[in-house]
Amino acid sequence: MIRLNCDYLEGCHPSILKKLTDTNLEQTPGYGTDHYCAEAADAIRKAFSCPESHVHFLVGGTQANMTVISAALRPYEGVLCADSGHINVHETGAIESTGHKCLALPAKDGRITASQVSVATAMQADDEHTVKPGMVYISMSTETGTVYNLSQLKDLYYTCKQLGLYLFIDGARLGYGLAAPTGDLTAADVAKYCDVFTVGGTKMGALFGEAVVINNPELNVRFRYMIKQKGGMLAKGRLLGIQFSALMENGLYFELGKKAVDQAMRIRTALMEAGFAFHVDSPTNQLFPIFTDDQWEKLEDAFALEFNGRIDEDHVVLRVCTSWCTPDEYVDQFIEMIKGL
Amino acid sequence: MIRLNCDYLEGCHPSILKKLTDTNLEQTPGYGTDHYCAEAADAIRKAFSCPESHVHFLVGGTQANMTVISAALRPYEGVLCADSGHINVHETGAIESTGHKCLALPAKDGRITASQVSVATAMQADDEHTVKPGMVYISMSTETGTVYNLSQLKDLYYTCKQLGLYLFIDGARLGYGLAAPTGDLTAADVAKYCDVFTVGGTKMGALFGEAVVINNPELNVRFRYMIKQKGGMLAKGRLLGIQFSALMENGLYFELGKKAVDQAMRIRTALMEAGFAFHVDSPTNQLFPIFTDDQWEKLEDAFALEFNGRIDEDHVVLRVCTSWCTPDEYVDQFIEMIKGL
Amino acid sequence: MIRLNCDYLEGCHPSILKKLTDTNLEQTPGYGTDHYCAEAADAIRKAFSCPESHVHFLVGGTQANMTVISAALRPYEGVLCADSGHINVHETGAIESTGHKCLALPAKDGRITASQVSVATAMQADDEHTVKPGMVYISMSTETGTVYNLSQLKDLYYTCKQLGLYLFIDGARLGYGLAAPTGDLTAADVAKYCDVFTVGGTKMGALFGEAVVINNPELNVRFRYMIKQKGGMLAKGRLLGIQFSALMENGLYFELGKKAVDQAMRIRTALMEAGFAFHVDSPTNQLFPIFTDDQWEKLEDAFALEFNGRIDEDHVVLRVCTSWCTPDEYVDQFIEMIKGL
Amino acid sequence: MIRLNCDYLEGCHPSILKKLTDTNLEQTPGYGTDHYCAEAADAIRKAFSCPESHVHFLVGGTQANMTVISAALRPYEGVLCADSGHINVHETGAIESTGHKCLALPAKDGRITASQVSVATAMQADDEHTVKPGMVYISMSTETGTVYNLSQLKDLYYTCKQLGLYLFIDGARLGYGLAAPTGDLTAADVAKYCDVFTVGGTKMGALFGEAVVINNPELNVRFRYMIKQKGGMLAKGRLLGIQFSALMENGLYFELGKKAVDQAMRIRTALMEAGFAFHVDSPTNQLFPIFTDDQWEKLEDAFALEFNGRIDEDHVVLRVCTSWCTPDEYVDQFIEMIKGL
Repeated sequence: MIRLNCDYLEGCHPSILKKLTDTNLEQTPGYGTDHYCAEAADAIRKAFSCPESHVHFLVGGTQANMTVISAALRPYEGVLCADSGHINVHETGAIESTGHKCLALPAKDGRITASQVSVATAMQADDEHTVKPGMVYISMSTETGTVYNLSQLKDLYYTCKQLGLYLFIDGARLGYGLAAPTGDLTAADVAKYCDVFTVGGTKMGALFGEAVVINNPELNVRFRYMIKQKGGMLAKGRLLGIQFSALMENGLYFELGKKAVDQAMRIRTALMEAGFAFHVDSPTNQLFPIFTDDQWEKLEDAFALEFNGRIDEDHVVLRVCTSWCTPDEYVDQFIEMIKGL
Repeated sequence: MIRLNCDYLEGCHPSILKKLTDTNLEQTPGYGTDHYCAEAADAIRKAFSCPESHVHFLVGGTQANMTVISAALRPYEGVLCADSGHINVHETGAIESTGHKCLALPAKDGRITASQVSVATAMQADDEHTVKPGMVYISMSTETGTVYNLSQLKDLYYTCKQLGLYLFIDGARLGYGLAAPTGDLTAADVAKYCDVFTVGGTKMGALFGEAVVINNPELNVRFRYMIKQKGGMLAKGRLLGIQFSALMENGLYFELGKKAVDQAMRIRTALMEAGFAFHVDSPTNQLFPIFTDDQWEKLEDAFALEFNGRIDEDHVVLRVCTSWCTPDEYVDQFIEMIKGL
Repeated sequence: MIRLNCDYLEGCHPSILKKLTDTNLEQTPGYGTDHYCAEAADAIRKAFSCPESHVHFLVGGTQANMTVISAALRPYEGVLCADSGHINVHETGAIESTGHKCLALPAKDGRITASQVSVATAMQADDEHTVKPGMVYISMSTETGTVYNLSQLKDLYYTCKQLGLYLFIDGARLGYGLAAPTGDLTAADVAKYCDVFTVGGTKMGALFGEAVVINNPELNVRFRYMIKQKGGMLAKGRLLGIQFSALMENGLYFELGKKAVDQAMRIRTALMEAGFAFHVDSPTNQLFPIFTDDQWEKLEDAFALEFNGRIDEDHVVLRVCTSWCTPDEYVDQFIEMIKGL
Repeated sequence: MIRLNCDYLEGCHPSILKKLTDTNLEQTPGYGTDHYCAEAADAIRKAFSCPESHVHFLVGGTQANMTVISAALRPYEGVLCADSGHINVHETGAIESTGHKCLALPAKDGRITASQVSVATAMQADDEHTVKPGMVYISMSTETGTVYNLSQLKDLYYTCKQLGLYLFIDGARLGYGLAAPTGDLTAADVAKYCDVFTVGGTKMGALFGEAVVINNPELNVRFRYMIKQKGGMLAKGRLLGIQFSALMENGLYFELGKKAVDQAMRIRTALMEAGFAFHVDSPTNQLFPIFTDDQWEKLEDAFALEFNGRIDEDHVVLRVCTSWCTPDEYVDQFIEMIKGL
């Protein structure tokens, strides 16, 4: 059984494991105050061209989202997001558990627009009976594999600035998003056009870990208190520093993103050539082709894929997902299978 | 500089690193539903003689505490604990952030008694203007290195049962606690006389990880929802399964605990022979000797120790901490230093 | 300026003021443990034919909603509701501030259906990454003045029972809802087909006050602790008992509801005769006619009405609201105005 | 049975009832935006010599406390208070339910000192593993009937300013506190030496109501959102405006306070002359004399008093409480009883 159902199926990139092994018995202070974390923070600042930003390392994505959002908002504020956004649908109400409402906007292919943000904020208009928007949350790449391009991101950012909202980019799959062949965003753009973003490690070749990069110093005030309170402060914080150091070395992070997207594009081409339609046509490592139930059954014999929804009585959407370590032969076999369906 | 300031200074036991390396590119399902987690859960149930218990794997201690406690309590309930308890003083209000009050009882050497629990619960006596105790939290070993013995634990447990309270043992340092030469608690006793306990990995030779062992099935209802909501569900959950499998293999966990405590006892003996007093006389891997400021200054040249508090104008309490990997030579050098003070 | 913009413009029904005056210097115990509260609870149980129900008295609607919902739900549970529901749009995130997500369903004329509840619950299907529905919240009458009829309510209730959900009816305008000429629900039906409901006083002739009637004893466990913690326990609780006693006496509550709805129906008829359309055609004390901007301007000279939304460049929806004390002459004058537009 | 067990036994001062009656059918806008609230706010600003302060009206004390405190604090901050403080012991964890820890300091006769605040804040010292103090909460008069004098309050206030803490005075019994014969605080002092205080109505002759007076504009930012979210925004807000207008008229509030304290002092003198000791010797409307169990039994035949605690096997502390409306004959009868014990 070959698994193409998600991008966190294996352990980690060998260079990480090597670095963990090499440093294993070194003694360091705890809680992210070690030199590895300092080095990794520098490397991230450099890779994203944001020399003044503050970098913190957390273990997981839901944890990072709830920590950032609850640090940013006043009790009566909520976070605008796509209705398909991870915080709105796949975190068991983690944001609400910190007291804040997700103000869901109808997404198109996983994205929301500056105009939607403006309208939603205008409708609230200083009415103390409604939740005040305080932040906008977007994902890059989105939950459906799509990306924001530069003009869309700038629009969102300047709209947020004008309206007094923070802009937060959830970069759980940032490396894949930046590798989109149809995209035009650079790493530096991401850092330039938001108040805070995450650089996802878990789905990009680390054992675990999300780097929170805070560009707006307001959000950094006592942020470590927030990390600790929300359960995200790792005792052996260096494990995160070591991993992100390895990922940032010689651009490995971006290279892994590109590799995965290349594999996905090979599959996408094969699917299109074989005449399959897509629920969403995405330019990153997650594809959402439509299959008949019969085809699904056949696919399942050899591949683990993720059921994403039913289109009609006979058709389903499956998620096909490549990752930093999807080998060529898996892709070859899958393409072979597609051709034979 | 030799660090004896805490027990999470290094990476992990080599057997864990080996197992992580050996399994690195295996594909497994996520979120702790893999076979390594299943095996580790079995191993824990076996090691603690609790075949019916439910085992969950979380990343860190604060996270485990807040998840267990908020899963157990109704909104108007609080958790009785030692005033020196970790949840009361060193978790940045994580428990309160989930809406629950820590009902602190004055601890003696880090411990609370069944009688204190009875009195505190009786005083509340169904008065809707006060927080109702719903759970008792104790640490084993405690924050000051002491341990509960069997009769104390049984007293607490039966008192809790009678009063309708859950008993929760925070076992962040459980392996060290069970190795106390003055203690009489077995692993099976721990599981038998509480509703839920944790088996700490972070301080016991894992890279990270706390196993939550739920003996009382009431507490297990949809516990995985709680883990996810509180940010504790690791995508690559197998990392926890692999680590706890390795720790449980051939009793390694208990062996590491004993090794650390043996080292600490060597230091304790040396301190006593040299005439030093202890703020708390503890039988586990944490020692709390009293030094003069002069002595402290000298010690600091060669050793990182943790400042624990000031006794008077000239004296301080320092924490000296051994761990699963403290080498003999560190202990030797420290003893040498002590003799020369 | 005549106000027809809401139903809480005046003080209270004279019989309430008289009873408050008559009893003013009597000494009673506090927090709702007095004999007036006991009598009022009896009167409510009788009026709603629910002799076994528990009755609690709170001050306001948002307070009642947040107390009931947070008492009912486990931390990972949310409440299904109409997207137009009061808890979802007009309580500044009070439900989320207690940690729970409002799971909004697209409403039709303010109502949701049993089928929507089934589908939403089925989609969750025991997936720990999503919020689990734990309760259904409906309003009677709804925020747009419509009502549930008996078959709709029974459908919802039996669906909830089957799915393990609580059904909560927000009766802030219950007296108006029960007086709907097109409705068929009785007071007894309301109590029979839900787990908990409120009997609104504030909008029905009391100075303030919402009675929470708990039919399902599971929800009553330590409910007074919840009231106290959420800030809803009135020191001089008797004020609520006195008011609800007066409202329940000789069916005054229902009579006031009918009077207000009769006045609204007079206005509705006049509007229809004058050719005005309605955004929602409602059978209770809230009407939602559509006017041109010119007409709105003219109306505003003499009447305070509530802006409800804009239909297009030239048309708006206004809320016209009668109440327990709208005098005939106000209605006459408004109808006269309508005829002249 | 004469009740002297608390100060919220009766309805309200007749002038309030008259004003409620006179204005009953007037139509006003809701939620505290009416002219009565504006007038009452002006009257309070005048009475307390704080022309720039913001005044909000809430229904109850627990509600006011939780709203003020959660508006003031960041998620990782807690509130320093006396261990006997109302928020710490008699609000069912309302503060914790908003996510914040009560940092209890050992009180002496209900009071805490500037020095205790300094030490507690210094001990925290920017350590992200502990809750950061963000506010100091004191009660005036305290829960044991004592008062802060001017030098104590100034000490606390200037210490708070120096340490970056807000100072909050819970004035549920402010009128009684200001009438203490041994006290030297004026109304203007209260407003001058804190960031926010409440003027309690419930225990001072209103049906209900607490005015929140915000001196520090930082705390006023979107405070009405906080009121609404926490369930404290009264639809018919004018009821609060009307009551506080009546209480402030011609200094009635302060006169009622003085009257109650005068009655209490008569009882205190009688108790002292009869040789009774006090658990706390308080100069306000709450007295805490010590009786034998036999005496208690006799007292109970004619008077409802509040049990406050047991001193030893034979002695108890009872609370004797006068109020704005305690008639002379009650005091006379009680004194007669005391003489005969």
